[in-house]
Amino acid sequence: MKKDIVKPSTLPGFMELLPPDQILFNKMLDIIRENYEKFGFLPIDTPVIEKAEVLLAKGGGETEKQIYRFEKGDTDLALRFDLTVPLARYVAQHFSELTFPFRRYHIGKVYRGEKSQKGRFREFYQCDIDIVGNETLGIINDAEIPSVIYSTFKDLGFDSFTIKINNRKVLKGFFLWLGIEDSTEVLRTIDKLGKIGLEGVKKDLTEQGLDNDTIDRVVEFINIKGTNEEKLQSLKDLGIENDIFNEGLKELTDVNHYVETFGVPKENYIIDLTIARGLDYYTGTVYETFLNDYPNIGSICSGGRYEDLAGFYTKQKLPGVGISIGLTRLFYQLMEANLIETIDNSLTKIIIIPMEECLDKAIEAASTLREHNINTQIYTEKGKMGKKFGYADKQNIPYTLIIGTEEVKENKYTLRDMTTGEQSLLPMEELLLRLK
Amino acid sequence: MKKDIVKPSTLPGFMELLPPDQILFNKMLDIIRENYEKFGFLPIDTPVIEKAEVLLAKGGGETEKQIYRFEKGDTDLALRFDLTVPLARYVAQHFSELTFPFRRYHIGKVYRGEKSQKGRFREFYQCDIDIVGNETLGIINDAEIPSVIYSTFKDLGFDSFTIKINNRKVLKGFFLWLGIEDSTEVLRTIDKLGKIGLEGVKKDLTEQGLDNDTIDRVVEFINIKGTNEEKLQSLKDLGIENDIFNEGLKELTDVNHYVETFGVPKENYIIDLTIARGLDYYTGTVYETFLNDYPNIGSICSGGRYEDLAGFYTKQKLPGVGISIGLTRLFYQLMEANLIETIDNSLTKIIIIPMEECLDKAIEAASTLREHNINTQIYTEKGKMGKKFGYADKQNIPYTLIIGTEEVKENKYTLRDMTTGEQSLLPMEELLLRLK
Repeated sequence: MKKDIVKPSTLPGFMELLPPDQILFNKMLDIIRENYEKFGFLPIDTPVIEKAEVLLAKGGGETEKQIYRFEKGDTDLALRFDLTVPLARYVAQHFSELTFPFRRYHIGKVYRGEKSQKGRFREFYQCDIDIVGNETLGIINDAEIPSVIYSTFKDLGFDSFTIKINNRKVLKGFFLWLGIEDSTEVLRTIDKLGKIGLEGVKKDLTEQGLDNDTIDRVVEFINIKGTNEEKLQSLKDLGIENDIFNEGLKELTDVNHYVETFGVPKENYIIDLTIARGLDYYTGTVYETFLNDYPNIGSICSGGRYEDLAGFYTKQKLPGVGISIGLTRLFYQLMEANLIETIDNSLTKIIIIPMEECLDKAIEAASTLREHNINTQIYTEKGKMGKKFGYADKQNIPYTLIIGTEEVKENKYTLRDMTTGEQSLLPMEELLLRLK
Repeated sequence: MKKDIVKPSTLPGFMELLPPDQILFNKMLDIIRENYEKFGFLPIDTPVIEKAEVLLAKGGGETEKQIYRFEKGDTDLALRFDLTVPLARYVAQHFSELTFPFRRYHIGKVYRGEKSQKGRFREFYQCDIDIVGNETLGIINDAEIPSVIYSTFKDLGFDSFTIKINNRKVLKGFFLWLGIEDSTEVLRTIDKLGKIGLEGVKKDLTEQGLDNDTIDRVVEFINIKGTNEEKLQSLKDLGIENDIFNEGLKELTDVNHYVETFGVPKENYIIDLTIARGLDYYTGTVYETFLNDYPNIGSICSGGRYEDLAGFYTKQKLPGVGISIGLTRLFYQLMEANLIETIDNSLTKIIIIPMEECLDKAIEAASTLREHNINTQIYTEKGKMGKKFGYADKQNIPYTLIIGTEEVKENKYTLRDMTTGEQSLLPMEELLLRLK
């Protein structure tokens, strides 16, 4: 029987890493998870496949076109395209078993069959946190979120980043006051400020039919400068008599105050009145996070406050606030920009290279090291010593343990530090001390 | 606009846990991962979606019927149904970039659209390790695998379990010697020994057309008793002159010797000549693992040696040995049997309950605790103190920190141990010491 060979390949838009990079990716995942847990968020893990009817309850929009949807038997299925819809379904479904405010984190893969292009992925990790209230949720929660962002990105090794904060009510109220009932288009234009510049914004707004006077007021608004406190004062000074605006201003003022109490340094957050977030979904505070030296990467962590999480699944009103880190895309961009240190990419601490006749001694040593929670590999294949050392070299493992007849006789081990090249003959006790 | 409400529910066969159980599940995942890393296995993470042509290269069998397969655009896609096929594709695809023996672990979800029934899942976690050689792979690797199983299940909290070891070559050679060319059916029958008993096996073999004399030899073979060493001696004493049998016997003898060197206690492994593993795939050593007190749960960790991992993707010969833990099913069964301790199921160490006017102090305390890597939640919602304590109670968090005006004045904190009910007024320094 002739065996056909199928060319081994993955689909475009699906990231697959070699172990050294996978280790770095997993370290980032771990740091994110540790931080989420440090702030008291609880894990959930929902199915990747759900009923299409459930996942698409909201319907419409760009997302629906991108969804992986298919039938199995006579069930209409879909793969989750974010972690927010599953959260809404989860909270509605398990409502009576949860304690509110419900603080959950969820790290998992989501799927979007979008057009394949560089840096866009069809399968990617999202790392989400949300705080969901039952009927109400205090504004302090909106101030706690930036402290999670700060702590997480600090631990990920970033120093120079800025969390930009705004409030959709301030925007909405301001535009209502200007007589613009539906501010969706205007907000979309303002969101593009970074890309199209102030002149582009003016042009867009003119095309939308705004008069020059109104456009001047919009420009004045998005031009508000100064410290956070000065910006808040300028907003107050606009003298806008609109309830939504003033509610938003109060919230933004509170968030600004408590973000500092939560320990986020002044240089790491800023009120930015041009941040709107594309999604209709958000109704209050919104966040975006930028690496100061790499603005082109775009926002690396975004989110905001919404007033009703699960209206498609329950009549219960569930306001919430949350953020998401799209780790697959972030990792890809950091790699492209050479921003990931690839030095510390071995999980294995030591590899044992025994001479053939010393295998028993080597296995015993491996067992002892592992009992002491030292990640240990043992090279047991037959072959020349040169080949064995070559293997150890390629693996980037920091230490090699050499065991030959001499070592067996003395009941000692030759430890080689692969960075310095230094070698020392040690008994097991000292070896353990050195490696811990 | 009337909003239709969609009933929030998951599909049958998809496990979804509440946070307290999810925490326990994740702890098991972590322990498995730590152990895999301790033995020098490297992580990989492959796409859940692959080309159907690639995943089904082997074709046929039960699995193909169960697969989730669908089209997107004009691409024929499938969800992975195990982690072995993706490993084969991965090793073939990245062959030149990997170092052999390639030791990888992979923990991820796989999908099988099988008939939904109690304890069977359509989405489940597999936790796999494999050691893959280039052209050859020494038998010592087969002896190292049980030490990974032992270490992992020990750390998972199991004391009384048995790793059963056999070798397919011993079986194959024995049956060839009996004149049975294709032993697939006979092996399948022997595999059912636990279920159908010795009489059932005899009946099945008669139906397969074996004569009484042959059946007697088969029964004699599977009745071989004693210590591992006695069993090996009995096999030798059969005086079988068949190369495959003798190669298998040599391998089994070596594995038995080195398993002990690798530190697996005598009481935790046994040579069991009736273990065959259903899959055609295995060609040498095979493993199954049973909880001594709960044999009905079936094997909780199985695997074996195969001589060619990736023949469908490459001409390179890639022998390997590996095991898999099906964690979703195992977790479900442990829960059903009440074998999971649900006491230690809070990730959060402390929850801060401030009186309303002491919010700033509470936020500062939360930040300090978190800076010291203590998982901390702060209850910031408005409401009566009773409600706040109720929330703390329900969360199963071991400590509560109470901050009122008195505490603020004294710059101290009231720590309440939720297990003992003991309260103490402490300055931050002492608080940190107590919680670490």
